[in-house]
Amino acid sequence: MEKLAHIADARAAADIERQMLALGRAARAAARTLALSSGAARNHALTAAAAALRERSAEIVAVNAQDVAEAKARGTAGSFIDRLTLNEARVEAMARGLEEIAALPDPLGRTLAHFERPNGLKIDRVATPLGVIGVIYESRPNVTADAGGLCLKAGNSAVLRGGSESFRSSQAIHACLVAGLRAAGLPDAAISLTPTRDRAAVGMMLAGLDGALDVIVPRGGKSLVARVQHEARVPVFAHLEGIVHVFVDRAADLQKAKTIVLNAKLRRTGVCGAAETLLVDRAAAATHLAPLVQMLIDAGCEVRGDKETQKVDARVKAATEEDWRTEYLDAIISVRVVDGLDGAIDHIETYGSHHTDCIVTEDDVVATRFLNEVDSAIVLHNASTQFADGGEFGFGAEIGIATGRMHARGPVGVEQLTSFKYRVRGDGQVRA
Amino acid sequence: MEKLAHIADARAAADIERQMLALGRAARAAARTLALSSGAARNHALTAAAAALRERSAEIVAVNAQDVAEAKARGTAGSFIDRLTLNEARVEAMARGLEEIAALPDPLGRTLAHFERPNGLKIDRVATPLGVIGVIYESRPNVTADAGGLCLKAGNSAVLRGGSESFRSSQAIHACLVAGLRAAGLPDAAISLTPTRDRAAVGMMLAGLDGALDVIVPRGGKSLVARVQHEARVPVFAHLEGIVHVFVDRAADLQKAKTIVLNAKLRRTGVCGAAETLLVDRAAAATHLAPLVQMLIDAGCEVRGDKETQKVDARVKAATEEDWRTEYLDAIISVRVVDGLDGAIDHIETYGSHHTDCIVTEDDVVATRFLNEVDSAIVLHNASTQFADGGEFGFGAEIGIATGRMHARGPVGVEQLTSFKYRVRGDGQVRA
Repeated sequence: MEKLAHIADARAAADIERQMLALGRAARAAARTLALSSGAARNHALTAAAAALRERSAEIVAVNAQDVAEAKARGTAGSFIDRLTLNEARVEAMARGLEEIAALPDPLGRTLAHFERPNGLKIDRVATPLGVIGVIYESRPNVTADAGGLCLKAGNSAVLRGGSESFRSSQAIHACLVAGLRAAGLPDAAISLTPTRDRAAVGMMLAGLDGALDVIVPRGGKSLVARVQHEARVPVFAHLEGIVHVFVDRAADLQKAKTIVLNAKLRRTGVCGAAETLLVDRAAAATHLAPLVQMLIDAGCEVRGDKETQKVDARVKAATEEDWRTEYLDAIISVRVVDGLDGAIDHIETYGSHHTDCIVTEDDVVATRFLNEVDSAIVLHNASTQFADGGEFGFGAEIGIATGRMHARGPVGVEQLTSFKYRVRGDGQVRA
Repeated sequence: MEKLAHIADARAAADIERQMLALGRAARAAARTLALSSGAARNHALTAAAAALRERSAEIVAVNAQDVAEAKARGTAGSFIDRLTLNEARVEAMARGLEEIAALPDPLGRTLAHFERPNGLKIDRVATPLGVIGVIYESRPNVTADAGGLCLKAGNSAVLRGGSESFRSSQAIHACLVAGLRAAGLPDAAISLTPTRDRAAVGMMLAGLDGALDVIVPRGGKSLVARVQHEARVPVFAHLEGIVHVFVDRAADLQKAKTIVLNAKLRRTGVCGAAETLLVDRAAAATHLAPLVQMLIDAGCEVRGDKETQKVDARVKAATEEDWRTEYLDAIISVRVVDGLDGAIDHIETYGSHHTDCIVTEDDVVATRFLNEVDSAIVLHNASTQFADGGEFGFGAEIGIATGRMHARGPVGVEQLTSFKYRVRGDGQVRA
């Protein structure tokens, strides 16, 4: 019996491998069609998909209810259930998101650089699609529409792998995207969803689907991103965590500092741009530390501070070394007094995650040094770290925020989902 | 005895691992210093290294003679010996190369984009270094200076691994680079050379030196590039091969076609931009095929053609399917008659390597379609494919040509060896 079970398992694994490799080849072929498609056709697919989402909204919500019921029956946590759940308003938000992507300028064909050589050659660097983008995500079924739409806008095929808990929901949303592609005369395989809940499909995507995937974007918690970064054999656009700092310099305006710190920490605590550590310049501690700490605690935020910070308010808990390395994603902040700009930069470079960091100061020279020397994807002067977002940057939408240094860094919008080629025009030039 | 030998091997392997990981950490630390260094300091290091090369030229040539003698004693092929051999002129060329890199504009700190948001935020995308670049190369010891210099110019640490046959030569050249770094007050570890001939060092670099390497650039033959592309766990800037096409369209000017084809194939046959396949539009075959083929054969080029091409000259050999996939890097060309632009594009997309391809035509509409639809890093209209070179593009120098779609594509010069960050300036903005 056990032997027969092994054989059945091996057959199932071979089936999945065959299906996934076929899906990769189809995505690659579709990418060629997309690369030659017009921006109008891709926009048509996006708006038609939005219309299909609206039309099938009730059906999508009903199917989603099955996913939710199944997850609840397994005793899944409430926050997970919230991310998994769709209602008519969330479906409408997905449809509007696709229309907003359609309204963005076409990222393809842009001339990124033009130069003429002394021999008369005219060289243009023009934007082209990246190719095939794999997206691996967890519970949120709306990523199906958001990520699929962004990839399509930039002329890329998307291979989507949603969480197994949202399998039915993702399938229903994916069907709307395919309806949009068909309405525009584009191939179904331009946006594909892995046809199985089997986790082996993830491993195959991380291996690159036999060369079919150009890049992988993980969307989800730290353990998913860590696995993808560790195992992927293709480039990854991601950030593992956002250990985001606000540094209040000696020349900071206290009112500005309070407004920025409150927003950076508490506007939303679960986003990657939320502040996790407040650094206060020793030279400003006497005037700025107590008001900032008290404001945070009064607003319902737990404060974990170093010795100096503990002195200003009895409600401050002691911070441990581990706190400086922790992304709370909650109403908790670590607070430390540092020796000026250099102390702040040392702390950030030691404990930070190269995501987003902010200085509050009225001293432009100090601000400029901070912006130059802090090695993070986004560095801000006198503005909340919660602006770390493609929409806030004017990119229209983002597939995520990257902290790697290759190709994309910071918010990854449709422009970052493109590559380029060189077009050279001559009139018979040969090389000497 | 065998057991003792195993223990000694294991100790040696552990030593190499320890050395290589320490080298990676030092390179990473040096990268931070380089990122904050001035362009003037990096240029000073480059010109001082050039001076050191000139000063120690006789010494370098003498040390190189030992490498050459050892390679000859092992019966190494003549072309390999030629690439390995240094003389005073070649050392002088390296020194001049470093001075030319120093004279290039600083690629760091450039503002790549600037945008202002409705809320008053001012956002700049500015060029920053990539980080630490691993370079794995073969016999040519001059790559030590060329690659080390390019990485340094863009503020990156370089970890160089030369061919074991050129070990002494690379060490002598590397010593000059270190002399330059010291003269400029920059850390030695900004440019490091693997301290061992042991091939295990290559495997460790491909694994990324425990996160220390951001990208790897292989410089050498197809087998080296294939190994690096297959095994590297970090991004790779490379091209596996240049199967380069020239398509002579029905609207091609015959004289222009002859000039371009001759140069594209025979100016130098061993470079990646050398043409390997000539495609002739069936509608032009009657007038253009015979003169092109006869010109090539008369110039000493072997022609392997399809049936139609074999008819025009008895000296044409029969091409096999394999010929369309072959990078000869020699005075050999494959020739095929195709059905117009679509036939040419089909052939190129089927057999090409997405490196460099050219159309010869006086019809701008056809040329534009070719430039749009051929999915290669470099596409040319009426110009020789041998312009596929960073110097010819005006980049000053190149570390190689990439056919990947991520980050760098086409000639990889100092600009392509940079990343970027976002600097955001506000006056107290918070997110709603």
